[in-house]
Amino acid sequence: MSGAVQGRVHGVGLGPGDPELMSVRADRLVRGAKHVAFFRKAGRNGRSRAIVEGMLREDAVEFPMEYPVTTEIPLSDPRYNAVLSEFYEECTRHLCALTAEGEDVVVLCEGDPFFYGSFMHLHSRLQGTCEVQVVPAITGMSAAWTASGAPITWGDDVLSTVMGTLDEAALTEAMTRADALVVMKIGRNLPKVRRALEASGKLARAVLVEYASMEGQTVQPLADFVGEALPYFSIVVVHGEGRRP
Amino acid sequence: MSGAVQGRVHGVGLGPGDPELMSVRADRLVRGAKHVAFFRKAGRNGRSRAIVEGMLREDAVEFPMEYPVTTEIPLSDPRYNAVLSEFYEECTRHLCALTAEGEDVVVLCEGDPFFYGSFMHLHSRLQGTCEVQVVPAITGMSAAWTASGAPITWGDDVLSTVMGTLDEAALTEAMTRADALVVMKIGRNLPKVRRALEASGKLARAVLVEYASMEGQTVQPLADFVGEALPYFSIVVVHGEGRRP
Ligand SMILES: C[S@@+](CC[C@H](N)C(=O)[O-])C[C@H]1O[C@@H](n2cnc3c(N)ncnc32)[C@H](O)[C@@H]1O
Ligand SMILES: C[S@@+](CC[C@H](N)C(=O)[O-])C[C@H]1O[C@@H](n2cnc3c(N)ncnc32)[C@H](O)[C@@H]1O
Repeated sequence: MSGAVQGRVHGVGLGPGDPELMSVRADRLVRGAKHVAFFRKAGRNGRSRAIVEGMLREDAVEFPMEYPVTTEIPLSDPRYNAVLSEFYEECTRHLCALTAEGEDVVVLCEGDPFFYGSFMHLHSRLQGTCEVQVVPAITGMSAAWTASGAPITWGDDVLSTVMGTLDEAALTEAMTRADALVVMKIGRNLPKVRRALEASGKLARAVLVEYASMEGQTVQPLADFVGEALPYFSIVVVHGEGRRP
Repeated sequence: MSGAVQGRVHGVGLGPGDPELMSVRADRLVRGAKHVAFFRKAGRNGRSRAIVEGMLREDAVEFPMEYPVTTEIPLSDPRYNAVLSEFYEECTRHLCALTAEGEDVVVLCEGDPFFYGSFMHLHSRLQGTCEVQVVPAITGMSAAWTASGAPITWGDDVLSTVMGTLDEAALTEAMTRADALVVMKIGRNLPKVRRALEASGKLARAVLVEYASMEGQTVQPLADFVGEALPYFSIVVVHGEGRRP
């Protein structure tokens, strides 16, 4: 079990949440894994861990990577990045130590690992140090537009994906220029996202999807939603109106 | 087998090409299907059909939907749309007739069905006429950025997806405004795509991925590629450079 052969870190995209939407490869890797790592907030179960509930081997060794509490440090404070960076370094050391012992590790990732995912911060640190492989996955946005019941893009439509964390002017600008639109990471940025959608003339067509492909999935016109915040798993889509025969 | 219970049309996303990247649900539906429909060009095997080679039931009934030859009608000619529209109507009638007999039909789709896919043209016609269900899938672009070995988006990056078929001014504009970029449907539009990338200052960072996750996959800087056209299965990605701890 040690020395000779190096193990591998697999960044495994789990897809949007429905276990049947995991890829055949992800399903096989998750069910076979002896070492399973995942991010979570302190005191929580972990969102990616929840997706694989009931799928892990009985003897699987779990490695929860708990985000350091950063709520009292503003995002603009350099200490914010320093604390997070040290956390990612520490996780990287642990994963690499396992691979050095010849163990494979599966890192559970929400959606597609290389699409606004936390795994990317490990990936850039693991590279060059130990062997990493990434398994792509169905994104949350694919599940969201599927749930909406209509295609997201037609013909030559330009699709833009924007984060609700972006500042309002940049949001409005990007929304105005796009034919089809996906808004992620909305949460408490909802009022700002709504104003930017309004300013870009897209609010009336915006569809809100909560918990796409998960238990509790909802689909509704954003204009009908009353409230100032959305759950973490929320996406707004605006469908393109491009050329179609 | 007939009358009482209506069958269903399943628009099944097969993902980018590697059969292991099919979802567990798609895998199950494809292997169990009695009726399998797919688009193809006259005289070809069909790109989506190729992905499921060896997976179909022995008694599966195949329904190839052959695109009418349209090469001599320019895209701008209203007859182009008319011919295509009649073709989609005809396919729809056939699929609905099967469901009326209580049969389920699996329609094979490249990548995600609702993301620039041909199935969308059937979906809009099937809706209201017979029961349709769509299975989302891993997109070609997810496989492409995974093959590139680096995350596509960081922090607040705006990701834009553009088609090489768009006119040059619009392409350049969209490319300039995006932080991260995906270019699809390149083919013989390559010279135009290259010029637009150059004009938007993104050519040096553009990575060309051919046949993502398929046999023959290649990854190279676009600047190194000499040639005027690309195969159908080609994507150019420009990685975002957003915030990262
Ligand atoms: C850190 S990003 C991770 C994205 C993920 N890597 C992907 O490929 O979808 C988190 C955001 O993704 C969106 N998201 C991911 N999965 C979702 C789902 N099943 N339903 C709704 N939103 C989802 C939400 O907007 C959430 O704030
Ligand atoms: C009609 S669109 C279909 C997109 C598909 N529905 C998806 O979700 O990826 C066809 C374009 O998708 C891109 N594409 C799809 N799969 C690909 C793959 N495996 N490798 C490279 N390009 C791919 C190519 O740019 C191609 O011209």
